[in-house]
Amino acid sequence: MKTTPLHRLLAEDLKVINIGVPSFAETLTAVRAPHVHVHWTPPAGGHVAAVDLLDRLEAYAEVIESANKEALARVLASRPVVIDVQPARKVVPGMEGRMLLHAGPPVTWDKMCGPMRGAVIGAVLFEGWASTPQEAESLVSSGAVRLEPNHHHSAVGPMAGITSPSMPVFVVENQEAGNRAYANMNEGLGKVLRFGANSPEVLQRLAWMRDVLGPALGAALRAVGGIDLKAITARALQMGDECHNRNTAATSLFVRTLFPVLVKVVPSDRLVEIADFLSRNDHFFLNLSMAACKVTMDSARGIEASSVVVAMARNGTEFGIQLSGTGDRWFTAPAPEVEALYFPGYGPGDAARDLGDSCITETMGIGGFAMAAAPAIVQFVGGSVADALNFTSEMRSITLGEEKTFGIPNLNFAGTPTGIDARLVVETGIQPVINTGVAHREPGVGQIGAGIVRAPMACFVGGLRALAERLSQNAR
Amino acid sequence: MKTTPLHRLLAEDLKVINIGVPSFAETLTAVRAPHVHVHWTPPAGGHVAAVDLLDRLEAYAEVIESANKEALARVLASRPVVIDVQPARKVVPGMEGRMLLHAGPPVTWDKMCGPMRGAVIGAVLFEGWASTPQEAESLVSSGAVRLEPNHHHSAVGPMAGITSPSMPVFVVENQEAGNRAYANMNEGLGKVLRFGANSPEVLQRLAWMRDVLGPALGAALRAVGGIDLKAITARALQMGDECHNRNTAATSLFVRTLFPVLVKVVPSDRLVEIADFLSRNDHFFLNLSMAACKVTMDSARGIEASSVVVAMARNGTEFGIQLSGTGDRWFTAPAPEVEALYFPGYGPGDAARDLGDSCITETMGIGGFAMAAAPAIVQFVGGSVADALNFTSEMRSITLGEEKTFGIPNLNFAGTPTGIDARLVVETGIQPVINTGVAHREPGVGQIGAGIVRAPMACFVGGLRALAERLSQNAR
Repeated sequence: MKTTPLHRLLAEDLKVINIGVPSFAETLTAVRAPHVHVHWTPPAGGHVAAVDLLDRLEAYAEVIESANKEALARVLASRPVVIDVQPARKVVPGMEGRMLLHAGPPVTWDKMCGPMRGAVIGAVLFEGWASTPQEAESLVSSGAVRLEPNHHHSAVGPMAGITSPSMPVFVVENQEAGNRAYANMNEGLGKVLRFGANSPEVLQRLAWMRDVLGPALGAALRAVGGIDLKAITARALQMGDECHNRNTAATSLFVRTLFPVLVKVVPSDRLVEIADFLSRNDHFFLNLSMAACKVTMDSARGIEASSVVVAMARNGTEFGIQLSGTGDRWFTAPAPEVEALYFPGYGPGDAARDLGDSCITETMGIGGFAMAAAPAIVQFVGGSVADALNFTSEMRSITLGEEKTFGIPNLNFAGTPTGIDARLVVETGIQPVINTGVAHREPGVGQIGAGIVRAPMACFVGGLRALAERLSQNAR
Repeated sequence: MKTTPLHRLLAEDLKVINIGVPSFAETLTAVRAPHVHVHWTPPAGGHVAAVDLLDRLEAYAEVIESANKEALARVLASRPVVIDVQPARKVVPGMEGRMLLHAGPPVTWDKMCGPMRGAVIGAVLFEGWASTPQEAESLVSSGAVRLEPNHHHSAVGPMAGITSPSMPVFVVENQEAGNRAYANMNEGLGKVLRFGANSPEVLQRLAWMRDVLGPALGAALRAVGGIDLKAITARALQMGDECHNRNTAATSLFVRTLFPVLVKVVPSDRLVEIADFLSRNDHFFLNLSMAACKVTMDSARGIEASSVVVAMARNGTEFGIQLSGTGDRWFTAPAPEVEALYFPGYGPGDAARDLGDSCITETMGIGGFAMAAAPAIVQFVGGSVADALNFTSEMRSITLGEEKTFGIPNLNFAGTPTGIDARLVVETGIQPVINTGVAHREPGVGQIGAGIVRAPMACFVGGLRALAERLSQNAR
């Protein structure tokens, strides 16, 4: 090591604080000069409009913070319990006539992505509103089938997320706030409606789920008086799941809990098929996880002035978010492409854009936000174990608190980062991280990979702009 | 920071290597002097007899290494599959007449610890050889009941480990080497035979396991043609189990795999009780894990000159090990006390000494050796998450290879440290780490805590001494 002026300064007891530009600190490290490096970037990446927006909101800081505190408290207090399975038309509010629910913010038939179109056609056939795919397509394009977001009906669905009136849905109740949410049931992998497949085998499975699986699980859940989903999620997060793209532990715990009661209430001639189906599908818990997160985030809706994100969802065309303090408005941006690990034989050119309501899990602080709990998932979504740990710690910069019930062993049992504040997203420039499956852009091919995607910044800027307008109007 | 002679030396481009004593390096760190610290301790902690022993073995280094390579290869190639459940008397080799098998190395009735005595009495009552505990005790102390280690009969059992002729045992086959191993079935927690309880409720449960659970699981396993235990263990290690004191994931996966076939083969009037029992007992997989490890380590037995440890086991009085190259001899030391977290109301004064065959899991490289896979276990056995990671990396210093099938996500999917070489234990002074349940020293109270224990060094020194004698005799 050469003696440099820096070494002499060091010997003279110099103390260095380096702010911002990391390359200065790297030089100090290289010559072993003692220093402290402070990470700093200009707010909102220095974008003038965003800085201005944050400034405008600063005038309402106190009211926003108090609203956000209330929102976070409601999220943390939530007690999601799955209590029943019923046909959607019987329980989902506002589900009537020829209506199909879809994932993400509102989208019209002409703008829908391939897999969602395929799933819509499949659902029309499943409901018997048409008898061929061609007939189904003309029916839908004629406007005779109402298409609305799941989120407008207290519901969620993965990928295309199509929910039709006779599909069985889980009924999840937030036993703290009393609200309910709904999710259809997971079909497994391969050719499935949620990836846009609509062949006879797909429709047959849906019919079996409607006639056999749904009624059986409903009876079992009623017999046990419901199953606490927060408790299962908490255990699963200690067992390598993050409850979005890894649900092996949660599914196993759920099935093991239901096993004795299924055996009691289900006729033995049906039990074998049901056991077989539940035994094979490691993702079965996903839809329950989504409904638990939905019922939790819905309880934090409608708090005037709150900048907490209560929904993030994608329809394959647009990515949309909703804030607690801006009612039912969506703030959208084009759906991003996913940074993915592809299954053999597929690549980025085959991929649909980001799709599905499943990022309600990240909205609630699990999934990508809890990846530190699930390091094995990097084999599926890509990246290293260190990345998985980093995602969770990075998300602490944009969240208001932590869900201590969801203690992550790898982080000395620190809770999951919970309650996304849109202001923090814009201020830090850190976009919420989502891990997700990737659908083929053609209907019916199925899942072709999985990876990581970030919620688009424009959604948060849009949301904050609307919040600022609303606050200034109310103040007048 | 003051300018010291050390700072001046630093400015003059001094390079420092510090060997051994860490406090010198700490001083260098404190003044930020660049240095490399090399961990070093004298071999065998400088104990002359042990150094001498290692020297004697050095003459046979080549033959030992080749034998150990073969032992490790057999361990890694093992394919344990549970294929059946049968009464012990029908399948366990050499199990005949009034014989009971117990945990650990050989021990006579008069030297047995409290929980083991209680379990022996319970097993005598269960078999109908006596009708009161007093009668049972005089029968055993008269020598009319043969007491032999499980390990002498290709078997293992947790805690007291008592296996009696009519108990149902899992039949686990190593489908690579063709050998078989056996383990009784886990009774759950609370008042159970393995902790020395022998009340009517304990014996009733054992009768139910003999008459209902055992035959049902046997029929189910025969119907599916066996279940691959290595595959379940590999998945469970990615789900927070280390498959000794955490078996929640493995149990859930096992039950979920068996669910469809149980439903097929078991009469529906019995199915409810079985489902209920399997649904409640998170430790059910433990005995399967033990049998899988036993069948694996047995396939590495009897390799002349090998210093690989093929068994570690405790009877509550003594801790014993066996080496591949020294036949069926045991090398024993007093059973250590466990460094434990106690359940409320209990403390070290209540504890039995280290007990059970369950450390066959550590012998095979899981359990304490795989604690990095199961950080949540520190809530049960004590210590920090960092300790859990450290145990696994520390064990690499005394093992010959790694089981890549058991990739640990937290360690970037590095395999578990496998194949304990007794030479490395003595040379490094690093004793194998075991995590374990703690029994009350009085029979029948049950589990009072869990913690960490180290295999006594004297066992390894004893084993190596015998190996050295055998090698020098053979060389003559």
